[in-house]
Amino acid sequence: MSTIKSLKCMKCSMEYSPEPNLLVCKKCGSEGILDVLYDYSKINFKIDDLKKNSEATLWRYRSLLPLNSYTPISPLSVGMTPLYHLKNAEKEFGLRKVYIKDEGRNPTASLKDRASAVGISKALEAGAKAVCCASTGNAASSLAGFAASLGVPAYIFVPKRAPKAKIAQLLLYGAKTVIVDDTYDRAFELSIETSEKYGYYNRNCGYNPYLVEGKKTVGYEIWEQLGYKVPDKIFVSLGDGCITSAIYKGFYDLMQLGISDRLPQIIAVQAAGCNPMEIAFKSGEFKAQNPDTIADSIAVGIPRNRLKALRALNESKGDCISVTDDEIKQAILNLPKQSGVFAEPAAATAFAGYTKYSKSKKISPDESVVVLITGNGLKDIDSALSLFDLPKPVEPNFTAVEKFLNT
Amino acid sequence: MSTIKSLKCMKCSMEYSPEPNLLVCKKCGSEGILDVLYDYSKINFKIDDLKKNSEATLWRYRSLLPLNSYTPISPLSVGMTPLYHLKNAEKEFGLRKVYIKDEGRNPTASLKDRASAVGISKALEAGAKAVCCASTGNAASSLAGFAASLGVPAYIFVPKRAPKAKIAQLLLYGAKTVIVDDTYDRAFELSIETSEKYGYYNRNCGYNPYLVEGKKTVGYEIWEQLGYKVPDKIFVSLGDGCITSAIYKGFYDLMQLGISDRLPQIIAVQAAGCNPMEIAFKSGEFKAQNPDTIADSIAVGIPRNRLKALRALNESKGDCISVTDDEIKQAILNLPKQSGVFAEPAAATAFAGYTKYSKSKKISPDESVVVLITGNGLKDIDSALSLFDLPKPVEPNFTAVEKFLNT
Repeated sequence: MSTIKSLKCMKCSMEYSPEPNLLVCKKCGSEGILDVLYDYSKINFKIDDLKKNSEATLWRYRSLLPLNSYTPISPLSVGMTPLYHLKNAEKEFGLRKVYIKDEGRNPTASLKDRASAVGISKALEAGAKAVCCASTGNAASSLAGFAASLGVPAYIFVPKRAPKAKIAQLLLYGAKTVIVDDTYDRAFELSIETSEKYGYYNRNCGYNPYLVEGKKTVGYEIWEQLGYKVPDKIFVSLGDGCITSAIYKGFYDLMQLGISDRLPQIIAVQAAGCNPMEIAFKSGEFKAQNPDTIADSIAVGIPRNRLKALRALNESKGDCISVTDDEIKQAILNLPKQSGVFAEPAAATAFAGYTKYSKSKKISPDESVVVLITGNGLKDIDSALSLFDLPKPVEPNFTAVEKFLNT
Repeated sequence: MSTIKSLKCMKCSMEYSPEPNLLVCKKCGSEGILDVLYDYSKINFKIDDLKKNSEATLWRYRSLLPLNSYTPISPLSVGMTPLYHLKNAEKEFGLRKVYIKDEGRNPTASLKDRASAVGISKALEAGAKAVCCASTGNAASSLAGFAASLGVPAYIFVPKRAPKAKIAQLLLYGAKTVIVDDTYDRAFELSIETSEKYGYYNRNCGYNPYLVEGKKTVGYEIWEQLGYKVPDKIFVSLGDGCITSAIYKGFYDLMQLGISDRLPQIIAVQAAGCNPMEIAFKSGEFKAQNPDTIADSIAVGIPRNRLKALRALNESKGDCISVTDDEIKQAILNLPKQSGVFAEPAAATAFAGYTKYSKSKKISPDESVVVLITGNGLKDIDSALSLFDLPKPVEPNFTAVEKFLNT
């Protein structure tokens, strides 16, 4: 039994019955991203059941996901990533309830695996012979991994600046990899053209409405891990705006189900070198940009899911801010030392945003705050290493070692 | 209440009462690695309790670990990594029960986190002001991460050939990093000298007896994830021999507790370019080697835990084999395509060993087989990328894309 009521265009508000291959508004095309609306009266989801549920992946929330009960799923184990209390926040800013959600612990090492888990199942529901996406890197490597786990061919478009770890993942998972000699935004367009012409199932999160539905599970988890409580603030980096939209959707679902009564304030963080959403949020006017930032995963000049993201920011009474590459670099350095969690630049951007907010005293001591670390630092070693002078090799004798240790 | 009966020297069999700073045999020194012996009658561990235990980390086995009940632990979430059924094994070799245990999903992306979790707690028990280790890379980055999570200073020795991702982790976690201009074996000696002179707590797994105790939890997990069953064979790559020893110890504990009645056959896999243990196992004679292999994590010419490892191989009626770098490279390529799991070279070595054994028809169709993937491929991107000709960037137009896709 499907719990989906309709798919509603974010641009023109037209509603559609769900069909396996209907991904965007028939009138607005790829500008008209659809929102999955549910008939919540058909959803059977109770806290008591959840407490007894031993499934330690995002499938513990399957009743809240837009999948038929018989749809096959990837065996890869996604979600239920750790939520760590950041003790240092009290020492540094007097904040007692700051938490780090480490999404780098997912199968391909980013939050994107939540979307891919649902996306690959929707592709199978639609009878797709292959899947396709464009990505700054993480969604690409994620889709490639999930496609490999189920033996589905994958066609992936990445911009030339994608870090090589993500390219390595693509090649190893056996995806046909198109490195587009241009930006992510152009790679996105070419992936749409390819999927339309060849009938490949399109997994772009800023296109396919079901991907945000996979990502929204991170919201449920935060709520569950905080003891069935909604946090006051969630910091998240923003590129296409999909994760921002997904956090909203997760908490929105819980409200519609009568399980919680509020949304967290969503604080989206952009890189100063690519902040079209900050400008759109503050001025009401959207203008495309040419990205220039170390944070490759959010180097998105045309945020595809901007309508959903703006709704999330407005309805949650949130904010959209930006941080400089220097602030991002400082966050890359500070987070692992304080927590043992190593974040890629775009993920550290959220931490930089939290730091900036804290310094401006915009967080109260007892507010509960979650910083979403969306991808693992191992995905972009070169950016991390560029922050250090690599120690010189030490002669293999104890005198040399002691001399080195005392400098 | 301590459940430890004594610490017994693997070389001279002398037994000692546990003391916080007693790590090696007083007579044999670092050649005399100690084995932690338990009074199993004091251990309260029952399957029914385990079934009700919602702790989703290695601390679900705390009663089997050599820690006092009040010892602080790192907040990092270790263990309960996924065990995946490898469907391709049936198609390729007619094997129905082959499983991949993905230890790359641990906090710093390797199995070493199990050892560090226990090691850092033992350091705190001993009142250490700093911790120290030598490592081919994974144990180093792991200890650095765990030390950071608890604010303990770390001094780490790595050989100059350690992959840069592991160096990056060390620097980011804030460890004092000594890159020794020599092999791992020399780095090991210098770390011992340093920890002795400065009183740093030594976390070398081929020295400190408690590290193997942390790693043994992977055995408990395999048993639990297989429905409280001991597998027939476990393939594991072998460097110092610590993980091999730990698998044995986990299943040995379960036997002593009367919970299971046998050991799995442990098949240790070495790189042909560094196989001193294969030679020792087959000939009875040990001789140091100069490592020459792509599998950096097991490039160990003097396996420190060889006595424990040989016991594991002999008592489990196991085997020790080696695979060439070409076979390792093939495994690096095959595993992610078949499973969605991306392994570093040393981890893929175990998969290469499984492949070699399967091709020789040394596994029966219904034997249950676990291949232990000890570290994440993201830790050594350069080795993975060296196996490919990187696709050339494609001009950003659809004609060029179609041409590329059709070649």
